Amino acid sequence: MKKTYRVLIEAKDEQGLVYKISKIFSDMNLNIISNSEFVDRDKKLFFMRSEISGDEVEMKKLQKEIFSSLPEKSSVKIVDSSVRKKIVVLVTKEAHCLGDILIRSVDNELDADIVEVIGNYSHLEKLVEKFDIHFAEVSHVGNDRETHANIIKARLDKLEFDYIVLAKYMRILPPSFVANYKNRIINIHHSFLPAFIGANPYKQAHERGVKIIGATAHFVTDDLDEGPIIVQDVTKVDHSHNWKEMQKTGKDIEKIVLSKALKYVLEDRVFVYSNRTVIF
Amino acid sequence: MKKTYRVLIEAKDEQGLVYKISKIFSDMNLNIISNSEFVDRDKKLFFMRSEISGDEVEMKKLQKEIFSSLPEKSSVKIVDSSVRKKIVVLVTKEAHCLGDILIRSVDNELDADIVEVIGNYSHLEKLVEKFDIHFAEVSHVGNDRETHANIIKARLDKLEFDYIVLAKYMRILPPSFVANYKNRIINIHHSFLPAFIGANPYKQAHERGVKIIGATAHFVTDDLDEGPIIVQDVTKVDHSHNWKEMQKTGKDIEKIVLSKALKYVLEDRVFVYSNRTVIF
Amino acid sequence: MKKTYRVLIEAKDEQGLVYKISKIFSDMNLNIISNSEFVDRDKKLFFMRSEISGDEVEMKKLQKEIFSSLPEKSSVKIVDSSVRKKIVVLVTKEAHCLGDILIRSVDNELDADIVEVIGNYSHLEKLVEKFDIHFAEVSHVGNDRETHANIIKARLDKLEFDYIVLAKYMRILPPSFVANYKNRIINIHHSFLPAFIGANPYKQAHERGVKIIGATAHFVTDDLDEGPIIVQDVTKVDHSHNWKEMQKTGKDIEKIVLSKALKYVLEDRVFVYSNRTVIF
Amino acid sequence: MKKTYRVLIEAKDEQGLVYKISKIFSDMNLNIISNSEFVDRDKKLFFMRSEISGDEVEMKKLQKEIFSSLPEKSSVKIVDSSVRKKIVVLVTKEAHCLGDILIRSVDNELDADIVEVIGNYSHLEKLVEKFDIHFAEVSHVGNDRETHANIIKARLDKLEFDYIVLAKYMRILPPSFVANYKNRIINIHHSFLPAFIGANPYKQAHERGVKIIGATAHFVTDDLDEGPIIVQDVTKVDHSHNWKEMQKTGKDIEKIVLSKALKYVLEDRVFVYSNRTVIF
Repeated sequence: MKKTYRVLIEAKDEQGLVYKISKIFSDMNLNIISNSEFVDRDKKLFFMRSEISGDEVEMKKLQKEIFSSLPEKSSVKIVDSSVRKKIVVLVTKEAHCLGDILIRSVDNELDADIVEVIGNYSHLEKLVEKFDIHFAEVSHVGNDRETHANIIKARLDKLEFDYIVLAKYMRILPPSFVANYKNRIINIHHSFLPAFIGANPYKQAHERGVKIIGATAHFVTDDLDEGPIIVQDVTKVDHSHNWKEMQKTGKDIEKIVLSKALKYVLEDRVFVYSNRTVIF
Repeated sequence: MKKTYRVLIEAKDEQGLVYKISKIFSDMNLNIISNSEFVDRDKKLFFMRSEISGDEVEMKKLQKEIFSSLPEKSSVKIVDSSVRKKIVVLVTKEAHCLGDILIRSVDNELDADIVEVIGNYSHLEKLVEKFDIHFAEVSHVGNDRETHANIIKARLDKLEFDYIVLAKYMRILPPSFVANYKNRIINIHHSFLPAFIGANPYKQAHERGVKIIGATAHFVTDDLDEGPIIVQDVTKVDHSHNWKEMQKTGKDIEKIVLSKALKYVLEDRVFVYSNRTVIF
Repeated sequence: MKKTYRVLIEAKDEQGLVYKISKIFSDMNLNIISNSEFVDRDKKLFFMRSEISGDEVEMKKLQKEIFSSLPEKSSVKIVDSSVRKKIVVLVTKEAHCLGDILIRSVDNELDADIVEVIGNYSHLEKLVEKFDIHFAEVSHVGNDRETHANIIKARLDKLEFDYIVLAKYMRILPPSFVANYKNRIINIHHSFLPAFIGANPYKQAHERGVKIIGATAHFVTDDLDEGPIIVQDVTKVDHSHNWKEMQKTGKDIEKIVLSKALKYVLEDRVFVYSNRTVIF
Repeated sequence: MKKTYRVLIEAKDEQGLVYKISKIFSDMNLNIISNSEFVDRDKKLFFMRSEISGDEVEMKKLQKEIFSSLPEKSSVKIVDSSVRKKIVVLVTKEAHCLGDILIRSVDNELDADIVEVIGNYSHLEKLVEKFDIHFAEVSHVGNDRETHANIIKARLDKLEFDYIVLAKYMRILPPSFVANYKNRIINIHHSFLPAFIGANPYKQAHERGVKIIGATAHFVTDDLDEGPIIVQDVTKVDHSHNWKEMQKTGKDIEKIVLSKALKYVLEDRVFVYSNRTVIF
């Protein structure tokens, strides 16, 4: 039976890489469904994402063959497209981003299972349970940032998942927490980063009198709002919007941007390097 | 206690209208919160939407005063902003537009009550019932278009509502049905009208090789896909999108456009004339 | 003969303003062509721009009548629409923004006369002279910032003009210079402000890995890149753009944004308050 | 000395194409600078554009080697990146699209020489001559469509050029003319095709009450406004725009869209098949 795989390669750029890799595909009788490449000329880095199909591949063999044909310090990852990914969603009080994910899940537009939703308030418990998904309240009240993050971590340790999605989770996660999930935490920031880092970006935006507001989905790193950007989008506003209206207007952008970023990540389209992303 | 009202005026344009109307507001000690006017110079028509606040207004008196100060054939409507509107939603199988409305409703972002959801299939019954809203299946199977519409009409006759929202309802409603609800049925068409009228617009769009796809929310009239446009938006596509991917990509536009149109309508921001809309 | 005027009002908000103003229009037998109002609720400020037509108005009388009907500290300005405005353009080396203005001028799409173009290099002299406009080179070489600005000021003092347009003028103008032309200098900044203030914003943007770049037209104030924003727009970029390609891509946005801002300003559509703009 | 080439391949899709092609590059010691591929699964067509660098290539040899490795009916084209292309521009009266091209040319942003501008009116003669480019007036007055086109053709026959750019040339070119320049005539249509085909699209758009207007750059074929689309873009309008204002607003989109399409074509990024384009 034919199966589909995603081959993800990151390597020091050198002449002949495409040839070497496509030769292995050819020798193993694999068909290339789609193929994307990018070379960062300044940093001399090569990125490639191929969707291939073939008889049940000996994935380890393929991985090994490619790896041995590449320069040192390369990375090769082979993903079976048929294996469904798992996500945990962290929320606070706002429903729009979480809701968008839930509806996509019902509509078969989310290529992942939602393992659990964790909230630092119980506000969204009822909504989540409507969809037969477990909701865990982990209140931050009475806990310092580290302790609270540790409680969440303890909870996550019992779950099996690929990515953590911060769907308007309004607390800062400490570096000690983030370090456990490198390039595995996706956040939606409610501004067009790097404008308006930090708290209440819509208030900041209104104060500055901007004519466009936006949202940014990014991987979370130690530096607040400084992680690699995956997707951004914007919408126009005018003088008649006070900051609360900007906030309302921004919600539609936030949910679409987060869901798009999630889609790219779940389809293994995102490479991270030098605090930026390549999206194939 | 101060209350807020929306004053909606449509009149033949003539000099001094703003003066006459604002004089009445002033005489009745009403404060103008916001004020929008538009004059169609070619058709010599005047449109005005004022949000006013004041002590419990004798709305009938205000309506009468304004009406008598206007030229013949004018229309004046006063809406109490605190009265929540009611909608009925018609659906077929796709969840994304309905889901967007449901989540907004949970998130207190929908300024209306959903009285009932009617589907010509039962696919969305479970989703609707999660939100404690009644779902009625009115199958079209075995009924011709007129008969099916009559059954829906009979159902609607028992309900109290302001607007009918076609949230990807994939059947054509006959003129005999539409005639009952002038400028009260809002549809989302999955193309950038007037391009790609009729069935499977994404297939048509792909066939034509367009680089942008869109969605259009409009009031339903007798002419299929020809009613007054309320909101349109678009998104870019490229050669790598086949029509099914265009369709997936289009869904995000569809739901946002429909919800925006609904918002404008519910806030009484939409005037209709000459098959077009004024949106304040 | 009927003439057209723009009436620009800024006042402390209070009940009945529209009534008072429209009464004066009515008493003087003036017809309102278009009317826009905005109230900043928080700051309790009222803004109004009316286009009116009537027999040759005694503008001073109209101005006086309106002024005396308004609260203290109000401002009323009446502009004769038929009087063409004058601009001076400052440039450095890049042609795209200047070129856009020149072509609009030839195409009768610029509602102003270009009095002179001043460059700190001679690069654009030939282009400007093709259009029979005087080009003055005022080199900064060998002069400190203040001295250079003073030479420009001396030149401007001999000219009659309404606005200074910085069409990619790549030098910072000192506060002593700016103070002479409050809300009369329009700059195009090649980023989506407030992101990437200062030098080489495209390099900064690439470094940060953004997925959208933009441009901002704003009035110049003492604070670098912090003046009131008039127009912003953006365009998408991806990982394949290095900073020079971002820069090339950004040029189209820059010129359109600057020309749009200029249009709004020339049509007296822009009010400035609290470091932000109202655009009617 | 290293040179850069663009290799453009269109072939029936089959397994191993990338391998075969990259092997030839490798054997000839060529470095791949960038590589883009696309497969139309339904039509089983393979497209590839590679930028390669190497010692002065025997281009004919490379072309032959690749061609012989591909299935029947394939096409291989090798373009020397350093050879500057030539264009002829056809215009009527409006300056904005032509002006945009002229300014880019001055600003070294147009990767082509403008051989001549031909107008069916003399309106733009002065503008063109400012830029030291020859302007030829070929009036349509007194000639039927065919005769007029033949006169233009006679003129073109004396010139050497790669592409004809219709920069708001407002006459229909007959099939007999078009047949001479397959995929070599680029037109800007002032609407978001396929909406509003034919004359005065802005009037049609206003009539229909659309909320978005656009422009479409496409190759010209026998069917009016039906040729393969290269670039489209749009901008929002509202009820306050009459059709002349829509037209003014549309001009900015038109010029940017045309110039973008021209850029793609000049960089050999555009493949045409089945009345659609692949843009790499």
